[in-house]
Amino acid sequence: MNDTNAYTLVPGGILAPRGFRAAAVASGIKKPGKLDVCLIVAEERVPAAAVFTRNSMAAPPVTLSREHVDDGYVRAVVTNSGNANACTGPGGLDDARAMAQAVGAAIGCQPADVVVASTGVIGVPLPMDSVLSGIEAAVGSLDAGTGDDAARAIMTTDTFAKQLAVQIDVDGSTYTVGGMAKGSGMIMPNMATMLAYVTTDAPLTPAACAITLRSATDATFNRITVDSDTSTNDMCVLMASGCAGSSVIDTQHEAFPALASAIEHVCGELARMIVRDGEGATKFIEVIVRGASSDADARDAAMSVANSPLFKTAVFGGDANWGRVVMALGKSGARVEPDKVEVVFAGITTCQHGTGVAFDETAASRALAEDEIQVVVDLHTGNGESTVWTCDLSYEYVRINGEYRT
Amino acid sequence: MNDTNAYTLVPGGILAPRGFRAAAVASGIKKPGKLDVCLIVAEERVPAAAVFTRNSMAAPPVTLSREHVDDGYVRAVVTNSGNANACTGPGGLDDARAMAQAVGAAIGCQPADVVVASTGVIGVPLPMDSVLSGIEAAVGSLDAGTGDDAARAIMTTDTFAKQLAVQIDVDGSTYTVGGMAKGSGMIMPNMATMLAYVTTDAPLTPAACAITLRSATDATFNRITVDSDTSTNDMCVLMASGCAGSSVIDTQHEAFPALASAIEHVCGELARMIVRDGEGATKFIEVIVRGASSDADARDAAMSVANSPLFKTAVFGGDANWGRVVMALGKSGARVEPDKVEVVFAGITTCQHGTGVAFDETAASRALAEDEIQVVVDLHTGNGESTVWTCDLSYEYVRINGEYRT
Repeated sequence: MNDTNAYTLVPGGILAPRGFRAAAVASGIKKPGKLDVCLIVAEERVPAAAVFTRNSMAAPPVTLSREHVDDGYVRAVVTNSGNANACTGPGGLDDARAMAQAVGAAIGCQPADVVVASTGVIGVPLPMDSVLSGIEAAVGSLDAGTGDDAARAIMTTDTFAKQLAVQIDVDGSTYTVGGMAKGSGMIMPNMATMLAYVTTDAPLTPAACAITLRSATDATFNRITVDSDTSTNDMCVLMASGCAGSSVIDTQHEAFPALASAIEHVCGELARMIVRDGEGATKFIEVIVRGASSDADARDAAMSVANSPLFKTAVFGGDANWGRVVMALGKSGARVEPDKVEVVFAGITTCQHGTGVAFDETAASRALAEDEIQVVVDLHTGNGESTVWTCDLSYEYVRINGEYRT
Repeated sequence: MNDTNAYTLVPGGILAPRGFRAAAVASGIKKPGKLDVCLIVAEERVPAAAVFTRNSMAAPPVTLSREHVDDGYVRAVVTNSGNANACTGPGGLDDARAMAQAVGAAIGCQPADVVVASTGVIGVPLPMDSVLSGIEAAVGSLDAGTGDDAARAIMTTDTFAKQLAVQIDVDGSTYTVGGMAKGSGMIMPNMATMLAYVTTDAPLTPAACAITLRSATDATFNRITVDSDTSTNDMCVLMASGCAGSSVIDTQHEAFPALASAIEHVCGELARMIVRDGEGATKFIEVIVRGASSDADARDAAMSVANSPLFKTAVFGGDANWGRVVMALGKSGARVEPDKVEVVFAGITTCQHGTGVAFDETAASRALAEDEIQVVVDLHTGNGESTVWTCDLSYEYVRINGEYRT
């Protein structure tokens, strides 16, 4: 169920690639002592790309960062957790601008080279005194350490920090790709994700950054769903310091495919970590749809299954309820021929030619007791294929989200 | 929150209109003694119309009934509960045909004038011995009684029977419209509903039946969602006995608008009963979106809110979490201008110009403690409007659907 490509894992997360420093501080936006401001700074202005939420209520930091990354270069990314700076009116955009300006003034760059991200509660103005003092403290404590604190500082309802880094060798050069992400609920990214930052020391061009990030997010963050809800603050940023030397790598460069694969691998691992940490999740579910009329149809069908509350509660209950899979396929809008559908639920063939087949319920119960469940559908109508990752729907999801904001 | 048009309520459900008989028997498909076969018979072959699920895994009884109602006339509707006869292969269609034949032979009509419906578990062949003996017993006990048992016999996870009947007077003639429905989970009808049957003694033509039923379902059953999942067996059937006399009523007849309104009223009441009985529901929620670019945009926006697990769990928790409403509007695909959005949550203005406004949290908690919650959104971009009914997402929904099938 994991990408088994052989990448060399290295420690350090986003700081594993050379050319970046980071800091994380507790500024008081969250409860006292909780890390809530994270700053990532490249040694210089570097090629970069970003993808953002398609939610039309996009938050002010999304609007601002879209402008700032548009020229293909970024120097720093500042993130606060505990407050999304969303639905905060014109003042919200002013606050996001003030964050960029504070970072720019302190590290010596244009505010337009600073990406700003916020995550947390919607509709409450940012406590700017805390935010600005946090930025000042962060600039004073930048280092090239482990990235652990940075990954923790962007968390909200996450129960664990999400980061990794890998190294690849291409034609005698060693490149490192690191990443971190946060996300647990309000997860069905649409051309973006919650917050994810990917760094590399490969000398990618801005265009190469943009193309590889778009492709990587489409294959990873855009294939996950926890609860079908799309955040107002989703953002994924890639920065390429170029510190690994070698010649500049554009999309025609022979090292580009290997680097793009490594970046996709890092994004995929982070995306799967988000699903494993889905609010209330007790099981990680991989839904694979094959034999669809097109890849797009396969994705629609897989997403429909992955978002079905009836399917998700069945998995929570340890029930190989393939009828709910078939129902979700049928409502998906994808081309489905009822007498061709095949469903293999947790390794057990439960439905062929659209009809239930006898199976060993005891074996099914045993298979469903595992932490990771795979559901493979073959529509037998074409060659389209797609994989989506999701989690089950448990009492705990209701508890977490049914509590008062306060 | 209810349709306040003044209709005279009368007892009898689907049997309140003259010209119909019904029977309900316990055939052993469900647990012994539970009513599970329901037969509705018109005195003769009568004008009728039906709408069906758009789920492409539509069950065999849906496929057969679509053919049978295509000519605009129906004599009888036979329903079994406890087994959906869905994903049952070619044998499933044979079984549905056998049900129509058995009814036709027993009451003396063509099998093609019999509508067949099944509801219950997916993927298990119908126990035809039970079904056929149930049909035989039902034919033997047809009467023009109360309709209560008929409404109970179509239930699955429903916790109460859903039926009503109203009378209207138009130009000296008295017409009666009765209806019953079942449904609790797997509820987001797509141009249809779970199972709903509407009878009238008005002498509607087949075309008038078709037009009024399509319009009524679009305004009622197609505006409800419990869990965003669309059943494979949804069906709504209207039969017009004509026993109320007067001249034939086509769509140009002066009595048609009043009858169409009465039929829509009955459908609306049944639809709202389904939501009130939504699996695990503790609250009935009305989402009204106004000021949209079009009615279709308004419906998309309202449905997006009504289907958001985060919104639904917030209502369960008694939390006026308008940020989640705004998130759901933003992901809906409807045209939303962030700085114009207004949200009134349970009577309390929580967001204006896309920005949170201070409100009394104590008053909000009190308002959210009510059984019925209204959320009114004004997008301030046009004149489109739509209302959708839904329920909250509770622990009980997870419990009901997380249990083993067995």
